[in-house]
Amino acid sequence: MLQFSLREMAKFLSVFSVRNLLVLSLALNVSLVLRVLVLHDSQNGSFNGFFFEKQNGPQEEAHASKRARLSSSVSSSSSSPLTMAQGDQDRVINLDHGDPTMYENYWQKKGDETTIVIPGWQFMSYFSDPTSLCWFLEPEFAKQVVRLHKVVGNAVTENRHIVVGTGSTQLFQAALYALSLKTEAEPVSVVSAAPYYSSYPVITDCLRSGLYKWAGDARSFSKNGPYIELVTSPNNPDGFVRHSIVNRSEGILIHDLAYYWPQYTPISSPANYDLMLFTVSKSTGHAGMRIGWALVKDEDVAKRMTKYIELNTIGVSKDSQLRAATVLKVISDSCERSDEEGDSFFEFSYRLMAKRWKQLREAVHQSGLFSVPDFPPQFCNFLIRVFEPQPAFAWVKCEGEIEDCESFLRGKKILTRGGKHFGVSPKYVRISMLDRDNNYDTFVERMSTIQS
Amino acid sequence: MLQFSLREMAKFLSVFSVRNLLVLSLALNVSLVLRVLVLHDSQNGSFNGFFFEKQNGPQEEAHASKRARLSSSVSSSSSSPLTMAQGDQDRVINLDHGDPTMYENYWQKKGDETTIVIPGWQFMSYFSDPTSLCWFLEPEFAKQVVRLHKVVGNAVTENRHIVVGTGSTQLFQAALYALSLKTEAEPVSVVSAAPYYSSYPVITDCLRSGLYKWAGDARSFSKNGPYIELVTSPNNPDGFVRHSIVNRSEGILIHDLAYYWPQYTPISSPANYDLMLFTVSKSTGHAGMRIGWALVKDEDVAKRMTKYIELNTIGVSKDSQLRAATVLKVISDSCERSDEEGDSFFEFSYRLMAKRWKQLREAVHQSGLFSVPDFPPQFCNFLIRVFEPQPAFAWVKCEGEIEDCESFLRGKKILTRGGKHFGVSPKYVRISMLDRDNNYDTFVERMSTIQS
Repeated sequence: MLQFSLREMAKFLSVFSVRNLLVLSLALNVSLVLRVLVLHDSQNGSFNGFFFEKQNGPQEEAHASKRARLSSSVSSSSSSPLTMAQGDQDRVINLDHGDPTMYENYWQKKGDETTIVIPGWQFMSYFSDPTSLCWFLEPEFAKQVVRLHKVVGNAVTENRHIVVGTGSTQLFQAALYALSLKTEAEPVSVVSAAPYYSSYPVITDCLRSGLYKWAGDARSFSKNGPYIELVTSPNNPDGFVRHSIVNRSEGILIHDLAYYWPQYTPISSPANYDLMLFTVSKSTGHAGMRIGWALVKDEDVAKRMTKYIELNTIGVSKDSQLRAATVLKVISDSCERSDEEGDSFFEFSYRLMAKRWKQLREAVHQSGLFSVPDFPPQFCNFLIRVFEPQPAFAWVKCEGEIEDCESFLRGKKILTRGGKHFGVSPKYVRISMLDRDNNYDTFVERMSTIQS
Repeated sequence: MLQFSLREMAKFLSVFSVRNLLVLSLALNVSLVLRVLVLHDSQNGSFNGFFFEKQNGPQEEAHASKRARLSSSVSSSSSSPLTMAQGDQDRVINLDHGDPTMYENYWQKKGDETTIVIPGWQFMSYFSDPTSLCWFLEPEFAKQVVRLHKVVGNAVTENRHIVVGTGSTQLFQAALYALSLKTEAEPVSVVSAAPYYSSYPVITDCLRSGLYKWAGDARSFSKNGPYIELVTSPNNPDGFVRHSIVNRSEGILIHDLAYYWPQYTPISSPANYDLMLFTVSKSTGHAGMRIGWALVKDEDVAKRMTKYIELNTIGVSKDSQLRAATVLKVISDSCERSDEEGDSFFEFSYRLMAKRWKQLREAVHQSGLFSVPDFPPQFCNFLIRVFEPQPAFAWVKCEGEIEDCESFLRGKKILTRGGKHFGVSPKYVRISMLDRDNNYDTFVERMSTIQS
């Protein structure tokens, strides 16, 4: 056995020479050039608006062609308002979706620490760990999930099963499947307190399932019988810490903790719920990996969630699990050695979010047309300081006469997601705080000058 | 713009030094050792049987503990029957699922040609190509899909939209969603001619969708109104070339062409259907990537399939798309230069499948208890020769008195999937032909000696 491994490995290493590594590096080089060209286009907002809420009305299409014309005038690198190109005045800023591209700078500075290398003959099987309840879960990814939660102190992992998913979106559906199978007759009601994540109703009802059915705002839910309540804390879209609302004996809770990380909110204690969802998209910024994880107390629920993912996609990309494991490891390492070698990941992202929220509050104040929520400050056990939540989305209200805040801002070439998608008044909009520096800076600059 | 790219790249390359590459290589080394240890366990059949059809009855659990005991006595490297360990006589061989680990040897020989390197700050966004209908489709993956189909000649790609999925399983569901939205009242019927892929009914009905509903064997389908017919060609489980059965005006077809590759069946002409599904799992053996693709003629259908994947998983792992692009490229390259530098991928896999089918037919003949299908030979335009199909699964019939072939073979410690899962008699079983050499060799050796 050992003899086999060493022989195979020697053979492998002999072909994997320094010259070959350089060839790889050169290939990477070409890919980087292409990538930068693509980023250049996409970050100027020329995407086709097909992300969750289709934006392409006739007005949008006019914008799109304008965006295409403007896309060559703005650099894709970070730029301060002082160095902004003239064209920024007219540029459409798309902050409708929460693409966490803000984090690219940090990972770029980290260089090759998070680079992964996967040989073509590795990780080919469907199976990751045949002994695990979740047979497609890479053991190294599971290990790094447990370690990171321990380092940050944001969730209890003891006596929990880890289920990996293609993003926490898939895990949300796996949880609905797992929790609603018990009920026999009519679909179980799925509720969440408004304003709720705009995708919950759409995803829940997209296949008209006979197992579960969207039943709207948890605050007005009065039907008898079993229900599933989604508790997002901190909440998407408004950033507030949340607890369950309905509190009846037949309720089952899903806690979506995608934003329970120290850059967004003080970590008051390790979350200790029956079913908790997390995702790398919002914690590390690697949305393109499509990796999320669930911490599940009940073994049968974990098994049924695993079954759903087996039926839905026969497991989860091994490559992205491995890459996610590397990223989580580097974050934990950066936290443990932060005194010696500069910023930890969470110090970096906390400071950037603090700066952005300060900019936004100043812009809102200067304009006088908008308001944003105030949050009570709390002590964070991880960052060892008191601070106010600084959410990944700004929940902005148009004050005064403006009834449709989304349309109003679209007129100013700022694309946002209106309150009606979240079950509340159109006077509200959700705005992503996680875009690249130059888009964010252009956005706050423009907000500050908006007059009715 | 160009200035930015070059500066950033120079910075990146300066940190990505030869010394760092060697550190990476060493880290890889450790990972390989761990991997070989994991493979060693898993390939001896000690997986928990949770793959599509749960196998763990009380009898199975006894087997599992036996497998665990035996797992240290069998090497994970390929071994011919001559060198088999004594313990192979008693070992449980799990050929229930179609894990394509047979291909590992080829990719191992290819060395670093298919190795991918992804820096931590790349491919972080949700978006791959904002200008594409399928906004999460990596352009390089799309390019290599088109190239490979052109090289092999197995599908028309002109005037087709490519939709990438988390395996073709997700694309199958995306297609059901896209094609059934048109109907309003009751769920559209989904049919396929028996024996059909065992997962079709389970996946179709798992959420009790109001959009579509499994309606069984296409041959006995007589309901009026719209329907979706699944045409798998070559067919899983029996390997035969197929065409649609129902042929009514209101029918919509999904062609699952996962096995339409020259190692399994002669390529007679480029497939030219409205909606065709492919997957890397069965074409290249990289099941762990979870990457499939659809070639779709109708733009609206492609858009709705994209929408489903957006709702289901917000896109598809970028990392695996990039890795899949590299693997497809190496295959196309290997086909184009096969005269000069030895075997192309398809020559290698064709020869291995031919050898395995010869072994199986001999074993079946020697035992006298079983039969396997005979296939008419056909000319393959890609391999420029006439041959009989050599499917990825053997569709074995127990002859004579044996009524339950799956149970009978389980008694011989061969795990298979019985006919009832495929909508036909339990006298049939489906057996994977794609396992590693030592498992396959032990299997045919054992089959040849089975007497009633």
